[in-house]
Amino acid sequence: MSSAVQPIIWDKDHLSLLDQRVLPHELTYLQCRSAAGVAHAIHAMAVRGAPAIGIAAAYGLVIDALQGRDYAAAEKVLADSRPTAVNLRWALARMAQVQPRTADTLLAEAKTIHAEDLAQNLKMGALGAALIAPGSRVLTHCNTGALATGGHGTALGVIRSAHAEGKLAGVYNTETRPWLQGARLTAWELMQEGIPAQLIADGAAAHLMKVQKIDWVIVGADRIAANGDTANKIGTYALALAAKAHGTKFMVVAPSGTFDLECPNGEAIPIESRTAAELTEFKGQPIAPTGMAAFNPVFDVTPRALIDAIVCERGVIVQPDVAKLRALLD
Amino acid sequence: MSSAVQPIIWDKDHLSLLDQRVLPHELTYLQCRSAAGVAHAIHAMAVRGAPAIGIAAAYGLVIDALQGRDYAAAEKVLADSRPTAVNLRWALARMAQVQPRTADTLLAEAKTIHAEDLAQNLKMGALGAALIAPGSRVLTHCNTGALATGGHGTALGVIRSAHAEGKLAGVYNTETRPWLQGARLTAWELMQEGIPAQLIADGAAAHLMKVQKIDWVIVGADRIAANGDTANKIGTYALALAAKAHGTKFMVVAPSGTFDLECPNGEAIPIESRTAAELTEFKGQPIAPTGMAAFNPVFDVTPRALIDAIVCERGVIVQPDVAKLRALLD
Repeated sequence: MSSAVQPIIWDKDHLSLLDQRVLPHELTYLQCRSAAGVAHAIHAMAVRGAPAIGIAAAYGLVIDALQGRDYAAAEKVLADSRPTAVNLRWALARMAQVQPRTADTLLAEAKTIHAEDLAQNLKMGALGAALIAPGSRVLTHCNTGALATGGHGTALGVIRSAHAEGKLAGVYNTETRPWLQGARLTAWELMQEGIPAQLIADGAAAHLMKVQKIDWVIVGADRIAANGDTANKIGTYALALAAKAHGTKFMVVAPSGTFDLECPNGEAIPIESRTAAELTEFKGQPIAPTGMAAFNPVFDVTPRALIDAIVCERGVIVQPDVAKLRALLD
Repeated sequence: MSSAVQPIIWDKDHLSLLDQRVLPHELTYLQCRSAAGVAHAIHAMAVRGAPAIGIAAAYGLVIDALQGRDYAAAEKVLADSRPTAVNLRWALARMAQVQPRTADTLLAEAKTIHAEDLAQNLKMGALGAALIAPGSRVLTHCNTGALATGGHGTALGVIRSAHAEGKLAGVYNTETRPWLQGARLTAWELMQEGIPAQLIADGAAAHLMKVQKIDWVIVGADRIAANGDTANKIGTYALALAAKAHGTKFMVVAPSGTFDLECPNGEAIPIESRTAAELTEFKGQPIAPTGMAAFNPVFDVTPRALIDAIVCERGVIVQPDVAKLRALLD
């Protein structure tokens, strides 16, 4: 793993989760001693990022198995914690296949999911970096780094790999409102890694592309439908529209667990909405007048026509469509 | 004026400016007793919004004239306070023409500029509202209301007028990072006015347009070049690109003092950049890791091809170009 900080640590009988809500200024671990506790940490976004959520949920099942609690109940509380991230369902489905179902076999599978995710990210990093020409400038959104995954990262993993290969002339990252995952987490990972980067307001991305040639927008995914339409952090779709207008290429980086071939297209992806308070308050301080209503979707869908390449650990899909996705994933 | 709160008050020998940095939670007035004090308030964004800056600068000249200070020096300190807003230069140029130049004649001219701005806004409100079909949904950006002008507002003035005519089925406003003028100021004005509205993150606008038909994006302007290219708050250009992709019309609302016919196009408009701290800190608390670099342009330029209508007090320019602008303004 590229970063020295471990966001998800299995510790004998419980899960330690780095509380990403208070980063980068506090390094605090939550001790989760039940599946419900893990589900709460996922819902409250102490752990976030589609792959990391899947890994944490897998360990959540192990905790309840160790305690002798009901498997189906643990599975349900975890499945309900975030609706959009398909990795969560994917990890739960994979854990459900473990036979015989014991705490030990479940723990082995959770550790395998965790380790595989890191291996997949390193593979995707190499595949994605191979698409990037030397001297390129890239823009990323939200946090898709070691904090969001089993290590290295998806979109940020590609940036790490491309940086290691000396290919990047510039890295920009959005602050990613309302949760500021870009300002708090991606900026922190980039600084830890010694990758020079500049933070921008989400609304500044289109202007940036106009005044400075940006070669690639590189993002992660929370769910990819069978035709390539991609749900990702709110703001991604706006970046894709701006990229199209400026000849900037658009890359989605996600492990195969993010693909949902049963979901025909983006319109079928459920989009989680969260409370108005995420927009009207900041760290408990009001920033909008009391009672102001808000529309606060957490994700949006980027249609496949705006995506130049989807990078997964199995390979690269250029100009994605149903046939290409099935060919790679089946 | 539609709002009971007066953001710019001339008080015998000095200027009281509502400190918009602490709204909506504190109503505090700054007492400006010199042109330099007004310039500082403009630079520090205690007063903001292109028309309001012009009005405040005009009064700033009056203060120094009353004190017997040098006119040229006062003019220079005010001109240097914000580079992009052309209303500032326009107001200073208009004040420079006052003959004979006495404190009384300057005060009369400043009061005229102030009153004319309100009258222009009411006119633009009616002209803009006439473009809006009953049952429309609109989205606005930043704050262009009574706080940003001599009263009523430009883009928000059109929304006020359209609301008064019962035409609006929905109003959305962006929070407008990094200064949150939308969350703090526009939301406040909309609530004071009893106009139901929903706050969104800047990055959510494109998604909003996809899931909910938005009829118009309505924005103000800091400078409009001779061909119709429009500089406005960072994020405006991204909204214009998203609007084009969704068949949403795009309206710019600005008084004639915002037009700069000597500026041929958007590329010739200087774009103010501000400090990284506006993105890396919030109310003095760090939100990004210490030392993180940022790209923080305050404005962007929306090319005329993305603008369906420019509304000014002299009339409406549909699909703006050089000839139409000259015809209306000369």
